[in-house]
Amino acid sequence: MKKRYTACILIIGNEVLSGRTQDANLAFLATRLNDLGIQVSEARVIRDDRQIIADAVNQARAQNDYVLTTGGIGPTHDDITSESVAHALGVPFGRNAEADAILRNYYAPEDITEERMSMADMPEGAVLIDNPVSRAPGFQIENVFVLPGVPRIMRDMFQGMAHRLTGGAPMLSRSITAALPEGELAGPLGALQARYPDVEMGSYPFFQGGKLGANLVLRAFDADQLADAAEAVAQMVRDLGGAPSGSEQAQGSLK
Amino acid sequence: MKKRYTACILIIGNEVLSGRTQDANLAFLATRLNDLGIQVSEARVIRDDRQIIADAVNQARAQNDYVLTTGGIGPTHDDITSESVAHALGVPFGRNAEADAILRNYYAPEDITEERMSMADMPEGAVLIDNPVSRAPGFQIENVFVLPGVPRIMRDMFQGMAHRLTGGAPMLSRSITAALPEGELAGPLGALQARYPDVEMGSYPFFQGGKLGANLVLRAFDADQLADAAEAVAQMVRDLGGAPSGSEQAQGSLK
Repeated sequence: MKKRYTACILIIGNEVLSGRTQDANLAFLATRLNDLGIQVSEARVIRDDRQIIADAVNQARAQNDYVLTTGGIGPTHDDITSESVAHALGVPFGRNAEADAILRNYYAPEDITEERMSMADMPEGAVLIDNPVSRAPGFQIENVFVLPGVPRIMRDMFQGMAHRLTGGAPMLSRSITAALPEGELAGPLGALQARYPDVEMGSYPFFQGGKLGANLVLRAFDADQLADAAEAVAQMVRDLGGAPSGSEQAQGSLK
Repeated sequence: MKKRYTACILIIGNEVLSGRTQDANLAFLATRLNDLGIQVSEARVIRDDRQIIADAVNQARAQNDYVLTTGGIGPTHDDITSESVAHALGVPFGRNAEADAILRNYYAPEDITEERMSMADMPEGAVLIDNPVSRAPGFQIENVFVLPGVPRIMRDMFQGMAHRLTGGAPMLSRSITAALPEGELAGPLGALQARYPDVEMGSYPFFQGGKLGANLVLRAFDADQLADAAEAVAQMVRDLGGAPSGSEQAQGSLK
């Protein structure tokens, strides 16, 4: 059995929990991590609270190969992710010389404020993650990767740090859409799941135009097993009169 | 100090963690709960795994007034939320007579399958949550509310059960958009946060058309304090040349 790599994603910000902001980072990160052969074991949306963040970071890094955080690394008073990560790891928190230089080089002298420079405060031992958009860097410390919450900036920064992540074989997937309620699919699908134990079969119902249907998603590391199982599931849907439509991909095609 | 009510939302499903499905339930539930005077303290996206679900339910219900779960209550083999909740609470899991009757009444005799009827299996002591769309009910047991993952159905079911939730005063909010980078806002905003300690001030940066801006969100229980703070923040943005635009609302206006 090859090693399976996992990651936990911590989405930090009261705004997502208030319902005002729709998170747009989880789907992106989960897709890209899967491409790298790293499965997201859990995602947590947590409040801007030092102890809550620190506890979540420590729990996540003990249970996963990687922890990625988004949000809370800007210059305002509610940006407390960096100090909370230092607190979690029990390391000193203070000015990072390299980040300091990047910010001083980027801002005009009259724009250099205490608050802006606070974005260069990081846990001791942090390795920077470059920000090609607005310069203020994220950082890595041990297996924790600290990224901003703005999706456009987070994505560019993730691209630049992705090479630091070691993964296993990417999980492959096939999706088959059936115009049938789950109740009609459940018996035969359960039988096929039992026949293909190494192919994870998920059924995700939807409700569209007054009708119930289901997306049947098959995931596996082995391409041949996946293809066999997908053909069997598609045949099952045809036999039930459900007109399967499908897609094949290495999961994660936001590229 | 009045009691503050909190809820934890558990989003159950490998599909959200794989990145294939974008969760659409958190923002809805968080908004509605806030309207009811209940703050979402945390949201977790977790895998379809019995022990993981049970542990998350137990941790969440110990720390919050309410726990709401979405997903995993359909008829297929990967729908294991109900049995996992029974496992969490240490109560027997079996056929609920009322749910059994609803399903038998709804389906034509030839459509009654073992898998469909499995949707009537619930923890002992469960109180049903009516499903006006596709009939298969959710349930409440103690402070845990078990809802489906299909957004359209989940929403209708939540409406029907919302009266069971007791909350406090709803948090009011004001949002002010500033066409300024956070770095210019951070100092004065921090000073205003110190001046209005009972108004939670959050700054949420965005990147649009190549420019950085920020949504400044003020939240408070007291309408007068909120109005005063919002005027002060708007004036601050005007002073900085950031052309504030704003909105006022009892947070939660998806109605």
